[in-house]
Amino acid sequence: MASLGQHFLFELYDCNPDILDDIEAIKDIMLAAAGKSGATILNNFLHKFSPQGVSGVVIIAESHIAIHTWPENSYAGVDFFTCGSRVNPLVAYEYIKAKLESRYSNYTKLARGKTQEIERAAEWSSA
Amino acid sequence: MASLGQHFLFELYDCNPDILDDIEAIKDIMLAAAGKSGATILNNFLHKFSPQGVSGVVIIAESHIAIHTWPENSYAGVDFFTCGSRVNPLVAYEYIKAKLESRYSNYTKLARGKTQEIERAAEWSSA
Repeated sequence: MASLGQHFLFELYDCNPDILDDIEAIKDIMLAAAGKSGATILNNFLHKFSPQGVSGVVIIAESHIAIHTWPENSYAGVDFFTCGSRVNPLVAYEYIKAKLESRYSNYTKLARGKTQEIERAAEWSSA
Repeated sequence: MASLGQHFLFELYDCNPDILDDIEAIKDIMLAAAGKSGATILNNFLHKFSPQGVSGVVIIAESHIAIHTWPENSYAGVDFFTCGSRVNPLVAYEYIKAKLESRYSNYTKLARGKTQEIERAAEWSSA
């Protein structure tokens, strides 16, 4: 379906909990994943929670990549929102999955800003 | 479905394009939306694109809120990823929708880090 953006949601289960709780490792993995996927990095922000867990966002020229980790559940949720066709979020998916040592994962791809809906809204608006 | 996090995706069509292109307005709206929803703000980052469009991320203790705007299409895509039950993303939905003057919108709610999948992965792992 034609859309302005694509939003990939990665569900990474059964990861290595030590890596999930290591803010420096998560930062390195996210920045490398952004680069490998072809994204242009604008900024990044990481936060370590007490007693555990890390949140991280990499702002890219093509939108964003975010991660939230739950070491106590060996789980990480990653989002990759992108626009255009130059970036390949699935390269990031494979890379992050390997680096977090996830043994069970899946992803969902969603269309954001559907062309059909934009056109419909414009028609209503001008009617 | 029981899960660690809830991820809301807001699709905001037919917005006021002048507001979508105003980085200061977007920043104010996102921070106010985070506060009104009950979230604890940790940090924020906004970026203005040339010739148009704004990206913004608010990192909250409960995960993140992100926005990407396409003034040329009168569209904004917003994500609200949260955990726990203290934060109400739908308060942010109504607030952002009103402030961007969206005349057509919808949202999707997704479970992230499903309890059932975490348990299944743990069983496999220990088998």
